[in-house]
Amino acid sequence: MKKKIAVAKTLLDALPFIRKFYGKTIVIKYGGSAQIDETLKESFAVDILMLYMVGIKPVIVHGGGKRINEILNALNIKTKFKDGVRVTTKEAIKIAEMVLSGEINKEIVNMLNQHGAKAIGINGKDMNFMKAKSLIGYTGEIVSIDGTFLQKLISENLIPVIAPIAAGDSPTHPGFNINADTAASEIAAAIGAKRVIFLTDTPGVLDKDKKLIPSLSKDEIEKLKKEGVIAGGMIPKVDAALNAVEKGVEKAHIIDGRVEHSILLELLTSDGIGTEIVA
Amino acid sequence: MKKKIAVAKTLLDALPFIRKFYGKTIVIKYGGSAQIDETLKESFAVDILMLYMVGIKPVIVHGGGKRINEILNALNIKTKFKDGVRVTTKEAIKIAEMVLSGEINKEIVNMLNQHGAKAIGINGKDMNFMKAKSLIGYTGEIVSIDGTFLQKLISENLIPVIAPIAAGDSPTHPGFNINADTAASEIAAAIGAKRVIFLTDTPGVLDKDKKLIPSLSKDEIEKLKKEGVIAGGMIPKVDAALNAVEKGVEKAHIIDGRVEHSILLELLTSDGIGTEIVA
Amino acid sequence: MKKKIAVAKTLLDALPFIRKFYGKTIVIKYGGSAQIDETLKESFAVDILMLYMVGIKPVIVHGGGKRINEILNALNIKTKFKDGVRVTTKEAIKIAEMVLSGEINKEIVNMLNQHGAKAIGINGKDMNFMKAKSLIGYTGEIVSIDGTFLQKLISENLIPVIAPIAAGDSPTHPGFNINADTAASEIAAAIGAKRVIFLTDTPGVLDKDKKLIPSLSKDEIEKLKKEGVIAGGMIPKVDAALNAVEKGVEKAHIIDGRVEHSILLELLTSDGIGTEIVA
Amino acid sequence: MKKKIAVAKTLLDALPFIRKFYGKTIVIKYGGSAQIDETLKESFAVDILMLYMVGIKPVIVHGGGKRINEILNALNIKTKFKDGVRVTTKEAIKIAEMVLSGEINKEIVNMLNQHGAKAIGINGKDMNFMKAKSLIGYTGEIVSIDGTFLQKLISENLIPVIAPIAAGDSPTHPGFNINADTAASEIAAAIGAKRVIFLTDTPGVLDKDKKLIPSLSKDEIEKLKKEGVIAGGMIPKVDAALNAVEKGVEKAHIIDGRVEHSILLELLTSDGIGTEIVA
Amino acid sequence: MKKKIAVAKTLLDALPFIRKFYGKTIVIKYGGSAQIDETLKESFAVDILMLYMVGIKPVIVHGGGKRINEILNALNIKTKFKDGVRVTTKEAIKIAEMVLSGEINKEIVNMLNQHGAKAIGINGKDMNFMKAKSLIGYTGEIVSIDGTFLQKLISENLIPVIAPIAAGDSPTHPGFNINADTAASEIAAAIGAKRVIFLTDTPGVLDKDKKLIPSLSKDEIEKLKKEGVIAGGMIPKVDAALNAVEKGVEKAHIIDGRVEHSILLELLTSDGIGTEIVA
Amino acid sequence: MKKKIAVAKTLLDALPFIRKFYGKTIVIKYGGSAQIDETLKESFAVDILMLYMVGIKPVIVHGGGKRINEILNALNIKTKFKDGVRVTTKEAIKIAEMVLSGEINKEIVNMLNQHGAKAIGINGKDMNFMKAKSLIGYTGEIVSIDGTFLQKLISENLIPVIAPIAAGDSPTHPGFNINADTAASEIAAAIGAKRVIFLTDTPGVLDKDKKLIPSLSKDEIEKLKKEGVIAGGMIPKVDAALNAVEKGVEKAHIIDGRVEHSILLELLTSDGIGTEIVA
Repeated sequence: MKKKIAVAKTLLDALPFIRKFYGKTIVIKYGGSAQIDETLKESFAVDILMLYMVGIKPVIVHGGGKRINEILNALNIKTKFKDGVRVTTKEAIKIAEMVLSGEINKEIVNMLNQHGAKAIGINGKDMNFMKAKSLIGYTGEIVSIDGTFLQKLISENLIPVIAPIAAGDSPTHPGFNINADTAASEIAAAIGAKRVIFLTDTPGVLDKDKKLIPSLSKDEIEKLKKEGVIAGGMIPKVDAALNAVEKGVEKAHIIDGRVEHSILLELLTSDGIGTEIVA
Repeated sequence: MKKKIAVAKTLLDALPFIRKFYGKTIVIKYGGSAQIDETLKESFAVDILMLYMVGIKPVIVHGGGKRINEILNALNIKTKFKDGVRVTTKEAIKIAEMVLSGEINKEIVNMLNQHGAKAIGINGKDMNFMKAKSLIGYTGEIVSIDGTFLQKLISENLIPVIAPIAAGDSPTHPGFNINADTAASEIAAAIGAKRVIFLTDTPGVLDKDKKLIPSLSKDEIEKLKKEGVIAGGMIPKVDAALNAVEKGVEKAHIIDGRVEHSILLELLTSDGIGTEIVA
Repeated sequence: MKKKIAVAKTLLDALPFIRKFYGKTIVIKYGGSAQIDETLKESFAVDILMLYMVGIKPVIVHGGGKRINEILNALNIKTKFKDGVRVTTKEAIKIAEMVLSGEINKEIVNMLNQHGAKAIGINGKDMNFMKAKSLIGYTGEIVSIDGTFLQKLISENLIPVIAPIAAGDSPTHPGFNINADTAASEIAAAIGAKRVIFLTDTPGVLDKDKKLIPSLSKDEIEKLKKEGVIAGGMIPKVDAALNAVEKGVEKAHIIDGRVEHSILLELLTSDGIGTEIVA
Repeated sequence: MKKKIAVAKTLLDALPFIRKFYGKTIVIKYGGSAQIDETLKESFAVDILMLYMVGIKPVIVHGGGKRINEILNALNIKTKFKDGVRVTTKEAIKIAEMVLSGEINKEIVNMLNQHGAKAIGINGKDMNFMKAKSLIGYTGEIVSIDGTFLQKLISENLIPVIAPIAAGDSPTHPGFNINADTAASEIAAAIGAKRVIFLTDTPGVLDKDKKLIPSLSKDEIEKLKKEGVIAGGMIPKVDAALNAVEKGVEKAHIIDGRVEHSILLELLTSDGIGTEIVA
Repeated sequence: MKKKIAVAKTLLDALPFIRKFYGKTIVIKYGGSAQIDETLKESFAVDILMLYMVGIKPVIVHGGGKRINEILNALNIKTKFKDGVRVTTKEAIKIAEMVLSGEINKEIVNMLNQHGAKAIGINGKDMNFMKAKSLIGYTGEIVSIDGTFLQKLISENLIPVIAPIAAGDSPTHPGFNINADTAASEIAAAIGAKRVIFLTDTPGVLDKDKKLIPSLSKDEIEKLKKEGVIAGGMIPKVDAALNAVEKGVEKAHIIDGRVEHSILLELLTSDGIGTEIVA
Repeated sequence: MKKKIAVAKTLLDALPFIRKFYGKTIVIKYGGSAQIDETLKESFAVDILMLYMVGIKPVIVHGGGKRINEILNALNIKTKFKDGVRVTTKEAIKIAEMVLSGEINKEIVNMLNQHGAKAIGINGKDMNFMKAKSLIGYTGEIVSIDGTFLQKLISENLIPVIAPIAAGDSPTHPGFNINADTAASEIAAAIGAKRVIFLTDTPGVLDKDKKLIPSLSKDEIEKLKKEGVIAGGMIPKVDAALNAVEKGVEKAHIIDGRVEHSILLELLTSDGIGTEIVA
């Protein structure tokens, strides 16, 4: 019986966190290993369902990099680079959308719905809700997000699962590819999310001794960038996080998607497991 | 990290149960030690809050026996008996209501609200929602329950906390005292609750070897009554449970209110801890 | 037939007053003889029902002084005084709440409902709607009133019957006793009532010749206080009235609760019967 | 003060009647002297307003016989008769509608609105809500009434004031003249009115000694018709009354429109003043 | 098949205009030949129905000059003049209202409803929605318009058909006659219409060579008035148009009601047919 | 001016058809040349927009056969056949979904939205709204359709654009490929559509002399099948059409998608252009 009561107490330890996030929207950038490993995929699905069942409102923004490359290679479509940055060609944006919206997006939607949630997969072309203009080729910069449309879906107790493709400006335009971290950040800002969480393949932001930094402010980020501690692929992630909090999101979290149930651990337990970014 | 993940898994073990009861109404008869011991009171409050936060709809029906006797004694009001059954006099019903609605009810309401719920305390006179006629003196038999009124409160995300006093039929009638188990059973039936739970000071229904019986049907109950295994104070409790399931409540539970978090254990873990009665 | 027509004309004389108060909220402090004498109780009930049926929205705030003392005495609980003011002890607040919420409140609720209204009895702990802090012991000073909750009840065509007990700040706090006149005044202000009426055991505010003053402004009240014409128990009543009108209530009325149908006479006939306080 | 209290008691005597008719629809056929005499017009207007203010839902159906004849004569339009019954010609129906909808209807609407009600004047062509076919010439027989449309107006707290003109079946059809008693009866049935009241220029139905009969059933009416006691112009009125109660209206009243406040007297006092017809 | 496709293309040419006016309110002053000639009446009715079916919200304000004079003459009521302007007497206003609200208004309502629309005929006395004061005798100047009432009708998908009679200020006041152009202009302003269209018996505003001017601004109107090009009966029409656009209506149109389907041509085809007035 | 009026008359000729379909749902199977040729795509988009603007509710179900084959070939995925029927393998269903939901679906959505509609692209996995079981491999047979979900989208004025992929029964199931004609037919039945239209690359159903048959009943279809006049690829199309009308859809239309504006011609003009199937 004591063991049973311990179980109940573990449940109850989550109660203050459930209260804190009750009815609030959490945007989750889903990518990396968590999107590939079968165990982690299942772990992600039940985490989202748990949030959903206890009254928290998840919004998923997903990437799909590796799978897009696989298909591009299989179809023998060459990738171009300009100044070291990959340029999305018209051929490539069509493949990117096909993979993102036609394969990955529906896979996530199905995974969540079969567990008992009510998810709906969309990209920026649906309801024309996210529009972009060209940054380089068909890689786009977000011009506007119709937060009202997303909020309506959320208020109807749906989980929007969003592929980071934005609409162009004509009936025949193939749309724009948007960086998924940026999309998550801007969407979180547009709908007044309480939190935005970035699942990565690192434990979070690490200091110069490779130890996890639990919390970071804007000033500290600036300093660590100058010192070269925040570098490489972590820079755009930290920038996306910072962008969200500067636009009103309470906190952004960079957490380790390779850890099972990392989302629940970060949101519903007292220690958390990654780095949180505050304004 | 492994320990953290174990915590997350414990949370997730509750998920199928949360899904099962999501949006469903659970009537809980609150009484006995759970209503007196300070630790158990706190345990009860957080259990109810947990149900409330994860989208389950609790309705509390409480008793107040001991405290009523204390006040009756302190005021030197004699209790009358007829054929061995206590007769509620006009003087006594007024004291009973005073204690039930003026002390115990508001204490429960305050306890829940201070933890973050939205509870409202009522008795049968409010909205005239539960009416009775005389059984013996001012001990009443329920004549009607306005389930619509209770469902409206529930749909507004309130927790009704109900003192078992029913309205009489005139502006000056003092009302009727209703057995709290009966009231819980009839209220559960009237609002189409999914479950009714009776907190008792025993582990549940015990067999002739004093071992807990996890599940009982109507036929088994009849048999055990004839054998004298179900006897004494357990008879009216089992009858109230059976009455509810016969009127459409899915299951009734008789559980040990002396165990901390017994409600959560019964509803959100796989083994349960008491006896469930099915139709 | 002429007599019949005279009856119709009497009815029609009330029409302009019904129009004036149609859909408006009237807070009534119910106390004194009107709460004790059986004829006056009945008279009060039909007056409230009449207002309710013609589309006026009554809110009742009641006292209960004498009955609390009776029970305190019967239970042999001593009253303490500090600087001549009675101090509500923890023991006393529990008895006060028991009597107010468990006896008097439900008696009023039942009386109104049996006449055909839809009344619901609450105190500050319900929905945590009225909170207080300590003034002296467990006599409290109102800190906040959730007007929205009361307005929701009113908009659903319910009559809130309010016992003047406010919630404290913890799950185990017994709450605070609030002066009923003050509670009525603050509640009227919090919900934007059109009028607040204080039933008293005097004809209203009297001048130095003991003649009724039909109308008083703030300045006149100040003057009469200085002159000692307004004195003793009338001072807090006049202050409560003035507080309400200063916070936006159109008028406050101090009327004679010993006169049958005093509420109807004050609101629905041309002369009125007591003293009205204007800003 | 006693006189004042007597006034309050007169008001309260109306309370049971207000409760009985609260939220219920009462169709009133307005015609005869009550529509011509200035004092009676004013009396009618305040009666309707009183019903309206206390939550009763009046619907007015009016006639206009004398005024139609005046205009027909002034315009020198000859009236034709067939088998002793006047035949409405195309010329005459246009004049009838002009007078009914363009003069009398708007006069009633204005009278009610200036007293503080919210009345809207319509005839069967509005929303095509009442359709008819030819009985003789342009005198019509009702084919259908759209009760939903009228109930929508009523539920929005409007008073429909209805001229007894029904739509024909083409864009250029001038419509049909409907007997106002019949229209009132059928409209009451179509909207499930609680009562229908016919204002007449007699005290009600009289027995062979010319004494008022307070209540009549179908059988009694048949008998009195055979005996010739109910005769002449009273026959169609009694038939209209009977038709309504046979189609579900609780009672029909034939009352004396020449008595001031006859509607209030009939509905809100204990004796009533005319003849009521029951099924 | 080519001919069929041409038909489809004609339909599709209207699409941008349907989109532009979708859900928008268009006030139409209906008068002149379009109100008399049978073919033009039918043409008007189908035009309005077309607007209604494709989601545009028409509001009709009609005149009735000639028919009023006919009835005044037939009844031998003399028209008085003061300073060359006709003075509406009490006798005349009653006839005017009778003709406008009792004949013309209902004829239009019936015409639209028999084609499948949902029209309701009102004048300013209904709901007391348009009030006026005296300009000369019973010719009135609008004092207030209850736009909310009209918008409610529109939002319920009804077509208000409005006779230009305004309410006075007493139960017995016969009301005021309002110039129909002015009424249309003020109503358009009060409900925030997108457009107001005046049907006239001219092709629009003509220049000094009698050629149609397709578009006019305030300054140009001033200039043309000074030059005497805009003169006579066109002045009040242009003033009414200008008044509307100055009060927020996007554009006013003066078009030729003698041309079949002039309303559709003006709103749903690329060239338009009359003069538009802009701010 | 005459030419202008002819234009207006052409518009008005569509009015009876707009009235007939106003607020009604029309399911359109979009496929064949109409989905490939740029002119026909644009023609399709404006037709749908026209229906949408005039209050008709389109639902699009699209195919994608040729494009799926192109990608399958480009990726060198071999197609298997069993008894002459192509078997969808696990590899193939993933490519099919990728192309249908990730390319074609979003292209249609974007095309409609950029013209001013509000379209949203979904497949059976979204909200789990269309479920199937295996027919042969991953070619599925529809098991259930959640019509309520589709009706909610429609009632919010959205155009659902549906790729014919149904959900399987596990989180990792790739889903099932559904024949698009069958999907359109079943969806039309599930939502109680008024009509279902199949765009084909033939003029409709042809008789033995290759002349278009304008209308066909079930019996006639049976006869023509036996005679071999309806044969080959037309059989499943006719069966899908018949299935819909047998399940309550008023009529099914098989029309020539190679004709510009074929949808408008079929629905909004008097002759129609294809074959209609009635029950």
